[in-house]
Amino acid sequence: MLTPDPASIQLVTTELLQQRWDSRTKPQGSLGRLEALAIRVGLILQSAQPRFTHPAIMVFAGDHGIAREGVSAFPQAVTAQMVANYLAGGAAINVLARQYGLALSVVNAGVASRVPAVPGLIDCSLGLGTRSALHEPAMTADECAAAIATGRRLAATAIAAGTNALLLGEMGIGNTASASLLLHRATGWPLDRCTGRGTGLDDAGLQRKLRVLEAASARVADALEPSGILREFGGFELAMLVGAILECAERRCVAVIDGFTVSVCALIAAQLDPTALEHCIFSHCSAEQAHRAVLKFLGHEPLLDLEMRLGEATGAALAWPLIDASARLLSDMASFESAGVAKSIET
Amino acid sequence: MLTPDPASIQLVTTELLQQRWDSRTKPQGSLGRLEALAIRVGLILQSAQPRFTHPAIMVFAGDHGIAREGVSAFPQAVTAQMVANYLAGGAAINVLARQYGLALSVVNAGVASRVPAVPGLIDCSLGLGTRSALHEPAMTADECAAAIATGRRLAATAIAAGTNALLLGEMGIGNTASASLLLHRATGWPLDRCTGRGTGLDDAGLQRKLRVLEAASARVADALEPSGILREFGGFELAMLVGAILECAERRCVAVIDGFTVSVCALIAAQLDPTALEHCIFSHCSAEQAHRAVLKFLGHEPLLDLEMRLGEATGAALAWPLIDASARLLSDMASFESAGVAKSIET
Repeated sequence: MLTPDPASIQLVTTELLQQRWDSRTKPQGSLGRLEALAIRVGLILQSAQPRFTHPAIMVFAGDHGIAREGVSAFPQAVTAQMVANYLAGGAAINVLARQYGLALSVVNAGVASRVPAVPGLIDCSLGLGTRSALHEPAMTADECAAAIATGRRLAATAIAAGTNALLLGEMGIGNTASASLLLHRATGWPLDRCTGRGTGLDDAGLQRKLRVLEAASARVADALEPSGILREFGGFELAMLVGAILECAERRCVAVIDGFTVSVCALIAAQLDPTALEHCIFSHCSAEQAHRAVLKFLGHEPLLDLEMRLGEATGAALAWPLIDASARLLSDMASFESAGVAKSIET
Repeated sequence: MLTPDPASIQLVTTELLQQRWDSRTKPQGSLGRLEALAIRVGLILQSAQPRFTHPAIMVFAGDHGIAREGVSAFPQAVTAQMVANYLAGGAAINVLARQYGLALSVVNAGVASRVPAVPGLIDCSLGLGTRSALHEPAMTADECAAAIATGRRLAATAIAAGTNALLLGEMGIGNTASASLLLHRATGWPLDRCTGRGTGLDDAGLQRKLRVLEAASARVADALEPSGILREFGGFELAMLVGAILECAERRCVAVIDGFTVSVCALIAAQLDPTALEHCIFSHCSAEQAHRAVLKFLGHEPLLDLEMRLGEATGAALAWPLIDASARLLSDMASFESAGVAKSIET
């Protein structure tokens, strides 16, 4: 498959898109951040009248060996139970997918118990959960590479079928613990800055989580490459998300990033391919402690700030109507000329 | 028409709604501000499974005598031109109404030039613009009362036809000037704190606007009742918005408040009826200077903060999918029990 060089086919420029905005029937700049958002969308899709086609949610679910060390307020069985809930249509993301007309795919990246093969489930399981990063690498190098490749393949398949926006989410009891380890090792920030309450740990639970993460990180003293960090401390669904983000960047697909955990995957993806972030839209700032710092580090401002911390792509889905609106406004609004509206006091 | 006493029929309580949230398949509190939002919706609609029906946008358009004193970056003719743009479907609010499936009504509250009677226009014109508040009261007492009554009647008609959420917006060259005067007189805040750039005044334009507003306010030395403030310094579309907000509050209809100007109308409505605010949802914080202070004064946090300043209900429309989502999530999500999901590590 030929990968186009983005620089070589940059026909739609920021300047062109800004000119289009400034000829629409509204005071210049009055759509605020939606204007810059639509410009990014126009650049990614290389269209001055960008239009989203077949936008789709992908929720990657996987279990984490480290969850057995007591880092979550919920038992590991909840990952599989929630996958069943997604397939039955009862979870928050189902409600939002129905409301916004978004296709929803649920990927079994490696849930700890068998998940029945029901319609709507994409079974790419790489094992019954990862190993515990407290004691050993969460994944082998082969498993981690397979997970990245799987995420790429799933994104590529969706894009080939016409999708130009993927809303990326995750489900996995214990995966904020893994994400905090990834963040710690990828940025060098202290672990207590990287670690939050996840699904709702109390103070004692948070302290316990922090001690487990400190011990896990201490297991590998040497500095690690991004792929090493992902293998040692990541998870199947996290590595698949990294792969999906990388693939979006290569194929001019908008990647709508959900909360803390997916943002950390975007950070890892950006360390593997610095152009990856240009294709990411960060949907919201979650209540998970380190999320705001991650967004700031990545230099991206989230669209929503509603103190959510649910995951499963709910933040991405809630931001979707805004992202879609930005493109529709740029594409569909009348111009001053066509509508016969005066442009200023001078005209 | 009998107006129910809200206190006497409060069957759905905050406690009941919170219990419903806490039994849904998600960590407690993890939907963040959407949870409190849905509780407000449930209380207004008096339903533990609230559902919006026939949500509708109403844009009230009117002209302001004070616009002739040089307080806007756009000529007064733009009000009528934009009304024509709404009716032709080319404005930002049209794009959003189509995207979100919202009905759109455009009300001629008193545009300065004749607006052709085309389908989609509700003609309630009370005159060819108001008088200039720099020299005389913008409206007579009768005109102001008629405008409030018209706003009430239009809201009541929509509600009687099944609408339980009205998204309220405005169009009127010069109306941020009027809104700033209303805010100044209603709160006692200094005029420079109340006044912003509207559709995009430069520094010199802002200074000129401020001087005009100072002179206009100085014309009436005595303290005024809210209805007096509205009559002296308001506008036809602003008084209709006050009426519509008051009617929503009386009839258990959610009033989705757009930007600075409509927020000031909500403030005046609240001074006329303190229960009015309970029925208002503030959609966004605009870039217009005083808006954040108004929202803080009213004790309501906006859902969006995207530096928009377009008006015409665009902020209300963009927040609508979030408001609708909050109700759908509370109503449609499965419970832990029905979905067979463990509630915590203990279960």
